[in-house]
Amino acid sequence: MSTTVSPLAPTDVPEMPAIAGVKLATAAAGIRYKGRTDVLLAVMDKGTTVAGVFTKSKCPSAPVEWCRAKLGRGQARALVVNSGNANAFTGKTGKQSTALTAQTAAKAVGCTTADVFLASTGVIGEPLDATKFDGVLATLADTATPDHWMDAAKAIMTTDTFPKVATATVKLGKAKVTINGMAKGAGMIAPDMATMLSFVFTDAPLSSAVLQSLLKSGVEDTFNAITIDSDTSTSDTLLAFATGAAADDGAPKISRASDPRLKAFARAFQSVLADLAEQVARDGEGARKLVEVIVEGATTKNSARKIAMSIANSPLVKTAIAGEDANWGRVVMAVGKAGEPANRDKLSISFNGIRVAKSGARDPSYNEAEVSEVMKNPKIQIKVALGLGKGRDRVLTCDLTKEYVAINGDYRS
Amino acid sequence: MSTTVSPLAPTDVPEMPAIAGVKLATAAAGIRYKGRTDVLLAVMDKGTTVAGVFTKSKCPSAPVEWCRAKLGRGQARALVVNSGNANAFTGKTGKQSTALTAQTAAKAVGCTTADVFLASTGVIGEPLDATKFDGVLATLADTATPDHWMDAAKAIMTTDTFPKVATATVKLGKAKVTINGMAKGAGMIAPDMATMLSFVFTDAPLSSAVLQSLLKSGVEDTFNAITIDSDTSTSDTLLAFATGAAADDGAPKISRASDPRLKAFARAFQSVLADLAEQVARDGEGARKLVEVIVEGATTKNSARKIAMSIANSPLVKTAIAGEDANWGRVVMAVGKAGEPANRDKLSISFNGIRVAKSGARDPSYNEAEVSEVMKNPKIQIKVALGLGKGRDRVLTCDLTKEYVAINGDYRS
Repeated sequence: MSTTVSPLAPTDVPEMPAIAGVKLATAAAGIRYKGRTDVLLAVMDKGTTVAGVFTKSKCPSAPVEWCRAKLGRGQARALVVNSGNANAFTGKTGKQSTALTAQTAAKAVGCTTADVFLASTGVIGEPLDATKFDGVLATLADTATPDHWMDAAKAIMTTDTFPKVATATVKLGKAKVTINGMAKGAGMIAPDMATMLSFVFTDAPLSSAVLQSLLKSGVEDTFNAITIDSDTSTSDTLLAFATGAAADDGAPKISRASDPRLKAFARAFQSVLADLAEQVARDGEGARKLVEVIVEGATTKNSARKIAMSIANSPLVKTAIAGEDANWGRVVMAVGKAGEPANRDKLSISFNGIRVAKSGARDPSYNEAEVSEVMKNPKIQIKVALGLGKGRDRVLTCDLTKEYVAINGDYRS
Repeated sequence: MSTTVSPLAPTDVPEMPAIAGVKLATAAAGIRYKGRTDVLLAVMDKGTTVAGVFTKSKCPSAPVEWCRAKLGRGQARALVVNSGNANAFTGKTGKQSTALTAQTAAKAVGCTTADVFLASTGVIGEPLDATKFDGVLATLADTATPDHWMDAAKAIMTTDTFPKVATATVKLGKAKVTINGMAKGAGMIAPDMATMLSFVFTDAPLSSAVLQSLLKSGVEDTFNAITIDSDTSTSDTLLAFATGAAADDGAPKISRASDPRLKAFARAFQSVLADLAEQVARDGEGARKLVEVIVEGATTKNSARKIAMSIANSPLVKTAIAGEDANWGRVVMAVGKAGEPANRDKLSISFNGIRVAKSGARDPSYNEAEVSEVMKNPKIQIKVALGLGKGRDRVLTCDLTKEYVAINGDYRS
């Protein structure tokens, strides 16, 4: 947790409403940090459904394996999240830690261990001492209340400089339902199914299959479309919980993803994911610029995504943005190395709406002073038009600064 | 060209012998830099054969396209290399520049334009004014001499901090033949077929097909096995020239790659490529550590290469090395994200021979002080044993420092 808040932090932080059926509490369990909270317990009412997407890493963390194994039942009563230690690459000890944490939580909440979901973030490769949760989780279960959303988002931070929350309210049938989300993540961000850690809660009565379908389609253009440093985490976890409490207000129970009554909800759900994902990009380690890369005219959307990611992950493009340099040559390089169909002589490139390159060469109307001026903006949009087809995609990233190197050159030590 | 030489620069710089049939000269043509040479002319005797490998970028530079088109004839009389401007993403102007440069060189040397090979390095996207070579190339052709190898290597530098040369002498039949090479490159280095610019010359009488075969097999574990920043250049070019002059000393003419008399030469040729490639990694922009990544126990060599590259390109691994932190958790992350077969619980990881992780967890004998001590070494070897099969590979990279960001945050401006 840095003392300097990212200059890209949202200025408009929402009031987080309560979600009927969800209670939260945080504590300082002394996992790694001193003088700050590092454990979050969310307690959900009986009947809560759950869905999740996780890292595609071949070396996933113990909590990721725990959640995957429990997800099939589609039910949840508790979520325990700790920061300071990722419980990843911890062998048998890691597995024992997850089991012990779940037992402690199940006892505190009064449920079975299979109803407990876990996530951990922080250092990789150090054993996590789960006995530190002894007593702590019981106290949290007793004191949990429906507010505390901001405290919850703070307890799960690592190198984040601000807590990330988002909320939306939408009609489901004739009832008003609420969606609350939180996320953490600032480095090791190149999600492949989900980003570091994010948790979304709703009181809508959705089956776990519907929730899973919403997550799967929602994540593609939100968390999967951001990258900070191309490094996919061992611990990426996005869990969604639906308490169903809004059924008491007349919200219809939805058990099919194709139900037309779900449309507005699906849009709102997606907007919460998009908001959280953008906040993660805005808190990229050392970031001073939010970078939106738009690729259009590709042969397919998938091809556009690969080219956009090649640009967004290029250290040379990212350092140029940090230097406020509209270096389209490096964008050309990144398009060229992506390995996707591209024709140099049809390529056009714009920075913040000013076209700098056209048909494979510098734009004849190029004006250095004009471009330099827009590069001072904290938000930079790089738009690449390939001129080949109708494939279009958008990804978010940030610049690469000396602070990124400083943060990561002495994080563990 | 930096004023501070990389601390990883070789201390032992070889005396470069003459190669019969090759003359070199350099000049300051004022392409971009002030007060330094920026153009190299190599003049080769009649009968010189040529082979080349180039970037796989979909947006190659104009000189790369020129060389590809001329390579089929297998003959060369002149090589013109300039620094300061890459003549890449320059549209029709770029094509005209290569044609004009080749005409000027052909006239100066007394050959056809098809015998002229070109390479350019420097800024992308700016037109290259080839009229600057007028007169300059004629003077160079008149003054070219068999020495000047170090001057040649200096003229082609951009952000390099030291000139890169290598030489080997080997028997071909009963004759002594020589191989001289030079290379440049410090950023935008993740070669895919060849690195930025490298030129190798020999007096051995080899057909262009033999030379091409030597290049193709030689490049795989040398230039293709280094990465500085994962950014593949638009201009990567590796050309080899064989004058055949050693035939006068009795060297046999080799026209088949399978000729057993070629064995010792092939080894020496490969060693020159390996030497030059390592020097490029040693001059990585801002580098303070040379990093050798060895992956063994993979299912195949190709799988080992992908995992090694995932580690070598990870910003988090590279910043950890810069911070002298044996952060094996980030190595696990990079193994996991590679998408290749890996079993977390069989993974072992060593830094400079000290095993820090074993069977998917911290090594029981782990000693922080001991590991911290070896991380101070300017050369760091990361060895990952996957325990799955016999696939093994090795790649070279460097650490990621604040200086990399500084160099690339204001290179163009």
